[in-house]
Amino acid sequence: MEVTRKNYKDCLNTVYSAIEEADFLAIDGEFSGISDGPNVSALTNGLDTPEERYTKLKKVSNELKLFLLPISLLCRYITKPFNFYIFPKPFNRTSPDIKFICQSSSIDFLASQGFDFNKVFCHGIPYLNQEEEAQLREQTEERRNQHANGVGTPSFISPSSSKGSSHVPEEHKDFINKVVEKVEALMVNSEKTLDLEPCTGECCLKPCLCSDGLAWFPKGLHVETVETEKKERYIQISKVDEEERKRREQQKLEKEQASYQMFLVLIEELNDAVGFSRVIHAISKSGKLVVGHNMLLDVMHTIHQFYCPLPEVYFKEVTMCVFPRAIIARSFTFQELITNTSLAELEKQLKESPFKSPQVETAEGFPSYDTAQEQLHEAGYDAYITGLCFIAMANYLGSFLTPPKAYISARSKLIEPFFNKLFLMRIIDIPYLNITGPDLQPKRDHVLYVTFPKEWKTSDLYQLFSAFGNIQVSWIDDTSAFVSLSQTDQVQIAMNTSRYAESYKIQTYAEYIQGKQQEKEKQTTKTWGEDSWVKPHYTCSTTSAFGYSRYSCNECFTLYIS
Amino acid sequence: MEVTRKNYKDCLNTVYSAIEEADFLAIDGEFSGISDGPNVSALTNGLDTPEERYTKLKKVSNELKLFLLPISLLCRYITKPFNFYIFPKPFNRTSPDIKFICQSSSIDFLASQGFDFNKVFCHGIPYLNQEEEAQLREQTEERRNQHANGVGTPSFISPSSSKGSSHVPEEHKDFINKVVEKVEALMVNSEKTLDLEPCTGECCLKPCLCSDGLAWFPKGLHVETVETEKKERYIQISKVDEEERKRREQQKLEKEQASYQMFLVLIEELNDAVGFSRVIHAISKSGKLVVGHNMLLDVMHTIHQFYCPLPEVYFKEVTMCVFPRAIIARSFTFQELITNTSLAELEKQLKESPFKSPQVETAEGFPSYDTAQEQLHEAGYDAYITGLCFIAMANYLGSFLTPPKAYISARSKLIEPFFNKLFLMRIIDIPYLNITGPDLQPKRDHVLYVTFPKEWKTSDLYQLFSAFGNIQVSWIDDTSAFVSLSQTDQVQIAMNTSRYAESYKIQTYAEYIQGKQQEKEKQTTKTWGEDSWVKPHYTCSTTSAFGYSRYSCNECFTLYIS
Repeated sequence: MEVTRKNYKDCLNTVYSAIEEADFLAIDGEFSGISDGPNVSALTNGLDTPEERYTKLKKVSNELKLFLLPISLLCRYITKPFNFYIFPKPFNRTSPDIKFICQSSSIDFLASQGFDFNKVFCHGIPYLNQEEEAQLREQTEERRNQHANGVGTPSFISPSSSKGSSHVPEEHKDFINKVVEKVEALMVNSEKTLDLEPCTGECCLKPCLCSDGLAWFPKGLHVETVETEKKERYIQISKVDEEERKRREQQKLEKEQASYQMFLVLIEELNDAVGFSRVIHAISKSGKLVVGHNMLLDVMHTIHQFYCPLPEVYFKEVTMCVFPRAIIARSFTFQELITNTSLAELEKQLKESPFKSPQVETAEGFPSYDTAQEQLHEAGYDAYITGLCFIAMANYLGSFLTPPKAYISARSKLIEPFFNKLFLMRIIDIPYLNITGPDLQPKRDHVLYVTFPKEWKTSDLYQLFSAFGNIQVSWIDDTSAFVSLSQTDQVQIAMNTSRYAESYKIQTYAEYIQGKQQEKEKQTTKTWGEDSWVKPHYTCSTTSAFGYSRYSCNECFTLYIS
Repeated sequence: MEVTRKNYKDCLNTVYSAIEEADFLAIDGEFSGISDGPNVSALTNGLDTPEERYTKLKKVSNELKLFLLPISLLCRYITKPFNFYIFPKPFNRTSPDIKFICQSSSIDFLASQGFDFNKVFCHGIPYLNQEEEAQLREQTEERRNQHANGVGTPSFISPSSSKGSSHVPEEHKDFINKVVEKVEALMVNSEKTLDLEPCTGECCLKPCLCSDGLAWFPKGLHVETVETEKKERYIQISKVDEEERKRREQQKLEKEQASYQMFLVLIEELNDAVGFSRVIHAISKSGKLVVGHNMLLDVMHTIHQFYCPLPEVYFKEVTMCVFPRAIIARSFTFQELITNTSLAELEKQLKESPFKSPQVETAEGFPSYDTAQEQLHEAGYDAYITGLCFIAMANYLGSFLTPPKAYISARSKLIEPFFNKLFLMRIIDIPYLNITGPDLQPKRDHVLYVTFPKEWKTSDLYQLFSAFGNIQVSWIDDTSAFVSLSQTDQVQIAMNTSRYAESYKIQTYAEYIQGKQQEKEKQTTKTWGEDSWVKPHYTCSTTSAFGYSRYSCNECFTLYIS
């Protein structure tokens, strides 16, 4: 089902209940550019740590935009596929004018797949991150108060004529007594109104008059704050007969109703602006398993577009808030059985023994996909296929049980070990970024950190290490690279021979990491000292249609533990 | 007429002849963002010099993209409107993957006008700037040579049997003599072929054999470079009879033809990649008058997308190359008659006396616009209206002639004073950037340059200068602003009173400019000294279908002078 700004509000309940019913969700976003494409490969290194990779991707991701988020909601063998088109349409004149980068190769790729850009740019669903939502909520509150002030409060009818001074503050008593005298005169003379002296700023009399002070006056007096042309405010007290009193009360009621209507309009405007973020909040809140293929980018974009700017340091905590349970089809593979993990290959291999391709039907009212036809990369199809792959792999796990089970649910304990491990492309020895625990620390005893003149090429490194047989070079920048030797015991020999070299320098991997760590500590101390370090701003929130409930981070965690 | 990648090549001749016939052209581009929008207004200052404004706009312009260039070609009262959709589709794997910025407000504005983004992203005409074109031309040359080497050259039939040693270099004589002996043996023995020894790299024998060396051999010998499986190259000499000779000659001819076909394909690929730039080159070459409304951005984008990166320093020279004659409807107004110069207002006012709205018809086969309906900002309509405005204003000039003339052509001397003056938005006292001469230097004796703590607001400045009556504040940054006093003789008083001030500092405008000049000179010397200053790379070129003619800058100038 295609969802744009045009039909988004009508679909929302269908989406919510589909999330509720779903066993799990499969997603696969389309972006304005790919931060991990050929152009950034120069930035990435086969021996990056997960944290380094995150930092590199973060730089690029923040400037790109998610155009389309296809979500396939699967419940056993029935799927409900949605294609959400997304665009940061400015909400009003004060909302930020977002600038984002388009990469011509990515745009061209989408175009070649028949992507409809008008659906994004003309009819994309808007969204806000949490900070923007909070700001808008504040503005809405302000506008509501302004409206309420403009129409309602400073007009009262005195309820009774019983005098009493108990609630009047001591310092105002003199003043109030003078006013009461004037009011008593008004009751008997021929004047219809009494204007008190203008007061600058907030009228000191108002609190008394507006609360219990009114009780001082004879019944049926009308008390109102009036503004002069010069913006001076004063209090006007008028005699009113029964008819006038009713008319004014009716007027007051109408104004209050108008104010309430205004409030509803403002809340709807707010919800419209929060837009697609509400769907993401509902997914987070549901705690349902979310499956993706190369999901790292989807996760990063989801966080920075719908929650908060990607944190400087690392993003495990916020990821756990947004996706309490996520699984990556790619890291959830069986290395001995599946060698090529591109989505197309994955799908092909999962149709063959020992796997079994599941027969998934599309729910009524949703457009169905035909796996027999090549629809790869068509909006929505990839998410759907990712879902199928997950089912096939989960069911394969079931074949090891005694007795074997044909269907393994997304809630099964069997698949828990695969949770929250985000596949890392092009890192040699760390298959995934572990969101719920410490990252893998592969042995890198055979790795050397080499620095050299910027004229050096890969061939120079091959020549330098020619005595050591096969090596693997992972470039860091123009003047440094990691060189992996095939045998760890060669490391010491390489270190010894380099001792007197002038043009290049060799460190062991351990020395390199130690140096980096020291540098980092120095910087952290400095930054803390300068007091400029700010904890990334986000909360695990979910916004209902009436919009004020907030869920603490712990609640998300419990969803995972349960 | 809408022009995309799909129909672009079919339209090209129509476009060329329309340019040829046109009296003048009107343009009005649509961009992925506007560098002079509300968000940059903080960057611009009402007292910028034209050069400063250029530098500020340059920074932003380079990152934005022209999506659509509507061009209305007008010849007297007939117009041919074209809408060119443009997108930097990567030409091949090695072509640069261009990243550009989209501004959500601009995208939203275009969407609200019914802009078709698919026409840009899916079917936009590609283009190259001059440097990219030169690179691709080089690659094409290389591929052509590779192809030619692969199929053609190293195979010869010896033309005659006359011996001669005059052209054989002394150092090769011994070797050649030995070869000749072997060849003479071949002629009388029963072998069909003679294989010379393999040579590594470029065969030293080839130059001799391939040119005059052939003359050494008896007639009808076939000489060919052959490659072994190990990629060693050697020369094979074969005896051929008449039939074989004919067959081989036929083969050679076919190969040459294939090579020529390949050349044509490469040239077509090249021309396809140069794409829309060819239209811009044709416009530049025509020297026709180009009319725009707020044309500064159109000019800057045209230069950096189709010619060269915007020069660091200033862009008058390159502008003269690209647009030898440009006129801005906005600077070409009559201040006493037209006060509001927005395009909508301009059009309205030019329909009324003393102006006369021209009756312009659309040429057959082109979609026509209806000025009675509100089509403002619809792709192409703005360019068309800009053209109409120009005609109305030019004709108004004719009413001052004796006898008055009803129609003033774009070639008339009467409008020359308005040429090449680009309207500058939001600069108080400099209406335009003068491309063909020095910029206007308005008197700024009444202007003060004030620096102050960053907490100061406009109201603080008003208070500081409250004794001087009306002032005008033009912010530069957080801690400085220009303050224009209403009377020049107040400047000295202000300077005197500020002498002992500690929180703020005042300079006269002249002092400020002098300081900046000195700073600039210091930097220029430094940059020159470091030899890192590079003259902006561009040439005034025009590419014909066969693509190699280049026009020097002077030629463009003469077009203007004539």
